[in-house]
Formats: sequence, C-alpha cells, structure tokens
Amino acid sequence: MEKMNQTLAEIKPLDQKAMAGVRKRQDNLTKPQGSLGQLESLSVQIAGIKGNPRPRVAQKVIFTLAADHGVTKEGVSAYPSEVTPQMVYNFLRGGAAINVLARHIGARVVVADLGVASVLEQHPDLKNRKVAMGTQNMAKGPAMTKEEAIRSIEVGVTLVEEELSKGADILGTGDMGIGNTTASSAITAAMTGADVGTVTGRGTGIDDKGWEKKVKVIQKALNLNRPDPKDAMDVLSKVGGFEIGGIAGVILAGARYRIPVVIDGFISGAAALIATSLSPQVKPYLIASHQSTEEGHRIILDRLGLKPLLNLGLRLGEGTGAALGISLVEASLKILHEMATFSEAGVSEKEDPCQK
Amino acid sequence: MEKMNQTLAEIKPLDQKAMAGVRKRQDNLTKPQGSLGQLESLSVQIAGIKGNPRPRVAQKVIFTLAADHGVTKEGVSAYPSEVTPQMVYNFLRGGAAINVLARHIGARVVVADLGVASVLEQHPDLKNRKVAMGTQNMAKGPAMTKEEAIRSIEVGVTLVEEELSKGADILGTGDMGIGNTTASSAITAAMTGADVGTVTGRGTGIDDKGWEKKVKVIQKALNLNRPDPKDAMDVLSKVGGFEIGGIAGVILAGARYRIPVVIDGFISGAAALIATSLSPQVKPYLIASHQSTEEGHRIILDRLGLKPLLNLGLRLGEGTGAALGISLVEASLKILHEMATFSEAGVSEKEDPCQK
Repeated sequence: MEKMNQTLAEIKPLDQKAMAGVRKRQDNLTKPQGSLGQLESLSVQIAGIKGNPRPRVAQKVIFTLAADHGVTKEGVSAYPSEVTPQMVYNFLRGGAAINVLARHIGARVVVADLGVASVLEQHPDLKNRKVAMGTQNMAKGPAMTKEEAIRSIEVGVTLVEEELSKGADILGTGDMGIGNTTASSAITAAMTGADVGTVTGRGTGIDDKGWEKKVKVIQKALNLNRPDPKDAMDVLSKVGGFEIGGIAGVILAGARYRIPVVIDGFISGAAALIATSLSPQVKPYLIASHQSTEEGHRIILDRLGLKPLLNLGLRLGEGTGAALGISLVEASLKILHEMATFSEAGVSEKEDPCQK
Repeated sequence: MEKMNQTLAEIKPLDQKAMAGVRKRQDNLTKPQGSLGQLESLSVQIAGIKGNPRPRVAQKVIFTLAADHGVTKEGVSAYPSEVTPQMVYNFLRGGAAINVLARHIGARVVVADLGVASVLEQHPDLKNRKVAMGTQNMAKGPAMTKEEAIRSIEVGVTLVEEELSKGADILGTGDMGIGNTTASSAITAAMTGADVGTVTGRGTGIDDKGWEKKVKVIQKALNLNRPDPKDAMDVLSKVGGFEIGGIAGVILAGARYRIPVVIDGFISGAAALIATSLSPQVKPYLIASHQSTEEGHRIILDRLGLKPLLNLGLRLGEGTGAALGISLVEASLKILHEMATFSEAGVSEKEDPCQK
C-alpha cells in the first residue's frame, strides 16, 4: 500500500514551459503550421511529460502482463484457460505478434506472470510475480482480495522501476489472459455506468449465444459484488484481474517517473480507467495507440478524452497496438529534431494578408 | 501515348491463389482469427499484388513530385509559388518532413521536377522532368494541353521503371506544389460530381475569405473548361497539374509491375481518381495510408472504396502519410513471416462448440 500511495503522491502536472518550447519550434519548421496534426501534438505532449523541449525515445519497453480469470469457469471465452500459459511460452520464444511488432519498432518486451493459473517453467526472461493462481470466479464472489488488488498494482510499479536502470524512454502496455475482456467489460460498466450489453464484445471470437451468456455473467457479477464506481480499488478487486491491476501500476509508474505510456486496447483501457480514477493527474501521461473493435474500448477512450492514433480493427491485445503507436510517437520526435526551420532552409513563410 | 497505353494494357487482376495461401496461414498463426484486422488483410492484398504467398518489402521508394500551378495567380493559396522550388531544395538537403519520415521507415525518396515554374539548380538527386514551367491558369483556360497531360503521366511511369533495377518492393506517392489543393478539388468535383464547396478545404491554411475565393475560382474553372467526368485525360488536362499526372503515372506503373502503391493524402487521392478512371483494374493495387483533414479526400476514399490506415489529422502532403503507411504494410508482412503457428507453438486452438 505504501508503494502505491507514494507513487500516487509523486505524480506531477506536465511541464508547460517545455511544451511551449516545442510548440514554437513546430511552428517554425518547414510546413504549414499544424499540418502534421497529431504528430505535432504528440511531440508537445512528450516534451511536457519529460520536462524537456527536445525529448527522445531511444529505449522502448512494452510490458506484456499475463494472468488467468476464474470467471472462465462460466464459459465466457472461445479459448480454454490453458492458452494463457501456452501464449506466455510463445512470448518467451519470440513467436507471438507482440514479439514481431516489438522487433519491428525496436522495443524490448517485458513478460511477467501476474497470476497465471498454473506453475510456469522458469525462464530467464519471465518475471514471476504471481499474485495468486488466477482470480476467483467473479460470478460467485469478489475476483480477488483488496490486498491482492494493491499487490497487483505494486507489481506493475516495480516492473517499471526495474527497467529504469536499463533505460526506459517510453512504455507500452499489453495483456494476455483468457477471460480478460469479461473482466474489462465489467470494470467499464462499473466505472462509466454504461450498459453491460454495450460494453461487452466478442473477445477472442464468441458467437451470439456465447455473447448473451457473457453479458449475463457480467451482469450477475456486478449485481452480486456491487463495486463502488468511485472506489477504483473496490472495482479492481471485485471484478478485475491481476494483469489489469499490473497494467494500472505500469501506468502510475510511468506518470510518476515522467515517462509517456502508450496504452494498447480494451484491457489496457480498463486499467487506465482504474489508474486515472486513483489519480486524475495520470491522464496527460497517456497516449491511446489504437481503437479496438471492442465497443467498450470506444466508451473508455471517450471517457478519458483520448484520440486513438490508429484504427486498424485490432483486437488481439498483448501490446500489439501499443507497439505500432510507439513508432508514431518516435516519428513525431524525429520531426522535431530533424526537420529544418524556415530560416535554415530559406523557405518563405505564409503570406501576411495585412501586407498586401 | 504509346507508353501510357502499353502500361494500361498490361495491368492484370490480383493473384487469388497467393491470397488464399496467405489467408490460410493467417488463420493458423497464434492469435484469434481476424484479430489483427487490417494487418491481416494488408498481407493478403500484398500477396495478391506480388503473386507471392510470402511477399516482402525490403526496398521502399517514395516519389515526391513537384510542380507549380498557374491558378495561384488568382490568390488561392496562403503561400507564394516560390515555396515550391524552395521546398524542392529542402527535400534535396534532407530537411523536410518527408525526408525525416522516409529515414524513419527506411525508404528512399525520389524527388522529381514535373513542372516547377522556375529553373532549378542541377543536383544529383533531382530528376529534371519538367513538362512545362508550371500549368496555365485554369480560371482562364485549360491548365495544360492533352499532350502535356499524357507526358506527365508517362514521366511518372518512367520514374518507377528507373527504380526497378535498384529494387522497388513498395511505392509511396507524394506531392509538392503551391496551389495543388485547388487543382485536386477541381478534379474531385469534376470526377465525383460532388459540390465544389464540399470538396474544397483550407489547403496550407487560408482564412474564410480566402476559402470563398478558392471555391469561386474552382467553380469558374469548371464552368469555363467543362471537363468530361468520363474522360480522365480531359479532366487532368483542363483542371489538373503536372505532379498530379505524374502521381497517376506512378500508380499505373505500380499496378503494371505488380508493386503495391501506398497513396498519400488529397493530392495523391485526386491522382488515384485519374488512374483508376483510366483503368479500374488499378484499384486493388492501392493502399490508402491516411485520412487527410481535407473533406475532399474523404469523398475520394469513399469513391475508391479505400479504408485509410491512419487518421492523424495530416494535411502536409510530400508523401508523409504514405511513409507512415508503408511501415504498417511492412509490419503486416513481418507478422506473416515471423509469427509462430498454433502447432509450432503448441497453443490450443479455439474450442469447437460441436465437441462439447
């Protein structure tokens, strides 16, 4: 609890002076003002986060956090829970989508077990941070205890802290956990007040009948546990997941250490709801990488006031969208560093209508 | 005319067998089927274009074509025409946005003068392919002759052919030309039948009064020249531009040589209207990189049935959006090559409800 509270206490607003410096430079680069859209605003945001008018993102780190969900016993997913550990091994062998996309953008992937429901083989690249052997079935009672919820967040904070010495200029979040769209829909319904049917999607690919069952299970879990929408830790413990708490911790640590956090899709969005509820000061540290096909994700992004960079119909998780988003952030900073100004390039500026 | 007709004659449909092969592999990779959205469909499309179920895009080439527009005499742009040659020099020195983004994705930029209205200094990296010293003022008569329109397209085809020996696995299109959103709006209105006010935007940044003037000038040019919407060469010659014809040529050559063409924003979109009107078989060779802030661009993409990969509020041109799009195409092919299949990774597949 102490680590979480300390992290929350040290989150500060963005550096307005650094942001003004970048805005001025963007307006002097050889292009019509504002013509690079979000590539310009991203560079301003990153400068404000880092307190540096010429920031760079050399070291990119994506956190792919895995855990299992007791609610899968209700038959809410198209895949069996055994896929969670199988995919963890796939991450460690480098054969999953997140590995491919992390290599594409030059990022390293931190794979951590926050609560997979089986004992995983040791591996030098696997961080064993199991909070428990999966959550409890939220349709029968709370998914986890309050202590476990705090612990999952603090594990996320610590994972970021362990990367600081290696260099971590930008963070991406990612998830793996069969059943975690069910938990994320429950969190989204609880915290935004949106209808369960609206925030529940097809996850990995259930059919109409499966979807109806999923909605009923989530509604049952909410009726039974009655999470308090104003108390993020209550929501996380009653209907959340360990990887979701872990991602919330990564987000909080990013904000505390002034490192931009590129969030992935629906699961990371649910974690962002938790993190920003714990501290509204977290919001400006977030960059939404993409718009997932899960309708609940759109509702989260609207609530957080975030405009996603990509809309590619992704719904895989793992941090795949975050990886692609990090590359766009890097592009925005290269623009800032490498483009010539009007005076350097001898290019005429916009005509002043008053001088005609 | 012969080169253009030969190029058109040799455009063939995509290879369905290669596409089926990629679809099958995508369904066996360790992810729920379809969960990578457009990253999956892009890989299928590229395989169909190249006639190869395992295509790669090692050599990336962006064509940034420059030309001037006589219609600037009517005061339709926020910038003076002298910016066109100044920006060409900026491209050659590597200080423009397109240079930065091309370096970011590992592409080379081909800079060509299709009709800048001044004599440019020679430079080893500048292709001097001037069709004329800028177009004529379309508000007073046709922008160019039919011969010049054909020549601009054939220059584009030749530019691509010259890159084939160095390797060109994917092409991006880009433009530079003060006044060219005016020409692109005129082309879009002429070819889609959309209202001039709807397809006319702020270009590099004109105010309300400037916008009203721009709409009037375009309407005047259309009333005076009466381009035939069914005759793309008539439209190009009457209200087009040399760089627009050049980009249409790059597109046609891409389709002929079975190389995917990632189109940039509004100007490249207008060129794509011309190219696809000359041959509807061109369409499946196109990938729309982004959605520009110019409303006319949305109308073009709707007409072409293309879904843009990015929506970053870009409106710069030069090929900047195309560069970012090429990186996403490359990512889609890396997924195809580098991801493990279910059987390779020992991951369980989706549960079959019939076996329960």
